[in-house]
Amino acid sequence: MLKFFKILIKCSKNDMETHELQVVDGTSKRNAVSPTREENFPEWYQQVIRVSGLADNSPVRGCMVIRPWGYAIWELIQKRLDGMFKASGHKNAYFPLFIPLKYFEKEAEHVEGFAKECAIVTHTRLQSDGKGKLRPASELDEPLIVRPTSETIIGEMFSKWIHSYRDLPIKINQWANVVRWEMRPRMFLRTTEFLWQEGHTVHATGEEAQNEALDMLECYRIFAENYMAMPIVCGKKPESEKFPGAVSTFTLEAMMQDGKALQAGTSHFLGQNFAKSSNIKFVNENGQEEFGWTTSWGVTTRLIGGLIMTHSDDDGLILPPHLAPTQIVILPIYREDSKQRVLEYCKILQTELSQIILESEKLRIEIDDRSIRGGEKSWEWIKKGVPIRIEVGLRDIQNDLVCVYRRDKSPRNKEFMPHAQLIHSTAEILVDIQAALFKRAQKYREESSTHINSREEFIEFFKQKNSGFAYTHWCGNDTIVDKMKSEFGITIRCLPFEETSPGTCIFTGNQSAQKVIWARSY
Amino acid sequence: MLKFFKILIKCSKNDMETHELQVVDGTSKRNAVSPTREENFPEWYQQVIRVSGLADNSPVRGCMVIRPWGYAIWELIQKRLDGMFKASGHKNAYFPLFIPLKYFEKEAEHVEGFAKECAIVTHTRLQSDGKGKLRPASELDEPLIVRPTSETIIGEMFSKWIHSYRDLPIKINQWANVVRWEMRPRMFLRTTEFLWQEGHTVHATGEEAQNEALDMLECYRIFAENYMAMPIVCGKKPESEKFPGAVSTFTLEAMMQDGKALQAGTSHFLGQNFAKSSNIKFVNENGQEEFGWTTSWGVTTRLIGGLIMTHSDDDGLILPPHLAPTQIVILPIYREDSKQRVLEYCKILQTELSQIILESEKLRIEIDDRSIRGGEKSWEWIKKGVPIRIEVGLRDIQNDLVCVYRRDKSPRNKEFMPHAQLIHSTAEILVDIQAALFKRAQKYREESSTHINSREEFIEFFKQKNSGFAYTHWCGNDTIVDKMKSEFGITIRCLPFEETSPGTCIFTGNQSAQKVIWARSY
Repeated sequence: MLKFFKILIKCSKNDMETHELQVVDGTSKRNAVSPTREENFPEWYQQVIRVSGLADNSPVRGCMVIRPWGYAIWELIQKRLDGMFKASGHKNAYFPLFIPLKYFEKEAEHVEGFAKECAIVTHTRLQSDGKGKLRPASELDEPLIVRPTSETIIGEMFSKWIHSYRDLPIKINQWANVVRWEMRPRMFLRTTEFLWQEGHTVHATGEEAQNEALDMLECYRIFAENYMAMPIVCGKKPESEKFPGAVSTFTLEAMMQDGKALQAGTSHFLGQNFAKSSNIKFVNENGQEEFGWTTSWGVTTRLIGGLIMTHSDDDGLILPPHLAPTQIVILPIYREDSKQRVLEYCKILQTELSQIILESEKLRIEIDDRSIRGGEKSWEWIKKGVPIRIEVGLRDIQNDLVCVYRRDKSPRNKEFMPHAQLIHSTAEILVDIQAALFKRAQKYREESSTHINSREEFIEFFKQKNSGFAYTHWCGNDTIVDKMKSEFGITIRCLPFEETSPGTCIFTGNQSAQKVIWARSY
Repeated sequence: MLKFFKILIKCSKNDMETHELQVVDGTSKRNAVSPTREENFPEWYQQVIRVSGLADNSPVRGCMVIRPWGYAIWELIQKRLDGMFKASGHKNAYFPLFIPLKYFEKEAEHVEGFAKECAIVTHTRLQSDGKGKLRPASELDEPLIVRPTSETIIGEMFSKWIHSYRDLPIKINQWANVVRWEMRPRMFLRTTEFLWQEGHTVHATGEEAQNEALDMLECYRIFAENYMAMPIVCGKKPESEKFPGAVSTFTLEAMMQDGKALQAGTSHFLGQNFAKSSNIKFVNENGQEEFGWTTSWGVTTRLIGGLIMTHSDDDGLILPPHLAPTQIVILPIYREDSKQRVLEYCKILQTELSQIILESEKLRIEIDDRSIRGGEKSWEWIKKGVPIRIEVGLRDIQNDLVCVYRRDKSPRNKEFMPHAQLIHSTAEILVDIQAALFKRAQKYREESSTHINSREEFIEFFKQKNSGFAYTHWCGNDTIVDKMKSEFGITIRCLPFEETSPGTCIFTGNQSAQKVIWARSY
């Protein structure tokens, strides 16, 4: 213990003045996150969330607390998506959290889909039981469901607002919290309460509605690939995996670093199902009354789970620059006598860098001048996934140099560059990191995807660790799907849009219209 | 009926080509909202919400639907306040919607304050009753309260996050929905579910916490006066009106156009009450363990109710430019043969005006080229409260003129100005409208506020219609407060900060430290 303490003091002295990045603690451990991805991927995931300060467990079963670092990422996601929604003519609105049971019951498949996992409000007052304990009182005549999704309540309002074809299309989006009672909650991926956006639109024709559902899927793909740097396969869900009440569900599937699929967002063509159950009618140009055609589409805080599992490494979170709350952290390195000089220099550097515009916005830059050990400080930012760290010491200033670290490279991989060069190349470095992350993820996905032509090969493929995506022909038989799910935990992720050639089902030998993707999934 | 129809056709032809603003409908009615403020203020309020498209009743008792126009105002409110919170070092986070009953019970006054109006989740599944009806199933061991406010759940997390004085202050804000079961709901003012922000902070000393509570009150005042153009009296609530569990509650009180007070926001100094009940402790610089000192503060969608009742008139909503989702609407006036020319001109005008910066943002401008009657179209924007309407017809273009209407003036008060002058003076006009609205509201408040020195005069004052604010000395006796409340529906709104002179209570003749404000209120 005494020896360990001495090492700490030594480190502390040293790293105040040099660019030596000390090991994470006094031991010989080499990564900031334990276990590593290789050792235990699910536990690694939890630890990344913890060490980066993204979120915390809450005392409410299945609900999480999104900490400032995690929430700031969600705000950046919201801002970008919201801008894209508005640019394509959608308007935000807000609908009630509670749905009366009778509305919820209107669409038979819908209520069936959500009945097993909903929070139900039955009382509206607390009253003492006479023994110092409170118990629910004032029972409601009709229970209220805490919204798991809002098709039924929004549909009810649409039926009031829409009269004529002139009122169409109506394109609404809502940013909200929803609740689905989760038996096996996992932070960001499956929580009882989560944050999301839900788009709801009504159109005069089925074709227009289907195009809207596909357009919004494309909007999500652009966001996922360009901002999250997360490669996406777009496709259609098989019948068995559709949203309850939908005609078609379109999906974005991403591959995580353990080869599992993550459904990153869905867009539903609802046909006239919800229009009929909610009585959404309009008078068409010929004066005839018709039911509207509706869509709904959503992405959730689950995207943050996807972000973590796509890019992060055994040292913690890695954030693509477009979604990093802090894109550059400046770390001053000083002794007491050089403090003022170094801090002033850092402030000037911050001001200069803040003028740089990336994606129509000024860069987000922080100076961390807390008086804690330099090594500890650096590791904190590494774990938080900040794309660029810049260290500045007195000697560097005298030499007109700054020391630059990129989070997509090794924590010890530093580059000294002249001040002017940094200013000149910062935007380029950020763009390069963004592109490198996408490319790395894409490469991983490609290496972990295989086209398979026989059942035996298929089973072998999924016996591997981190197996990935298997493309096969499939005849549409659900018995196979059930069997694969129960025996191997494998499901059909989607019928990818880019697979259009017919062939022979590897399970039954029957005809198949196109290949599908099989994978284990979150 | 036939005659009425003819008039309509005549109007329709006329107002496509001229700037004549037709009456609202074919009748002789002179205002767009019925009843007027004078006739029936509460009903006028509902009608303004309806005709401007701000919100709608929902099928869920006490819950409203915030329509796109209303939600866009809320987004502008959020954006400004959020910027102010972040600039003063607060960070956003998100905590669970549900609060376990045992946490809620921890602070005795707090639970007492909210027990009578909370939504309680008791079940997590729906199950068929065998007769085709669904009923709640899977009862929870411990009921969950839908948050009416989050002190207890956030306090629980603070107790985990805070260890040492180095962790302080911690300054968190949450944008969220909350639920308080309302017996007499009114749109925006009192709804069972509402949207708000709640700030929660922990400090090492009581003084620092009290200053934080006062700083955030000041932040609200600046926002209310500078952005909402709503004059504010800042003060402290009397003991009887404090937030349940607070040491002191500070408040912003505004006066509506019927003389009633609106509590527009509150900021609470919570002392160590919640720190003790949630066990929020830290080790101070001397190594001793202490309880933290906490604050909380919030404003809600109620602000939109305040906005309506401060500025709007008998023609509908009037929006201060800083909070108008559309600040300028351009209304092209054309016949079929001039349509292209006029629309092109309007687009150029929009582009030019969109370059103008107000409050660090580009102006928000819309062209309304729907093919509906010009009169109907103008009235729609009048009712929506857009600050500036610009009409452009072919003759105007030829004369290099545009026709400008200000929403703070009469709907028929138009001004023709040369194109170049419009571009030059638009920012100035918007600033002028913003200032004029504030001034008008301030004048109304001053004219409706009186200093009163006797009980008789006091009773007389409150017999008047739209009575306003009465400033009197008061000794602190709660019996008087109860009496005034039950007999006349009057309460003490606050002990204003600017009233500091002692005097004699007008009810008891006892000593009084300062004057207080009495009023009827929302």
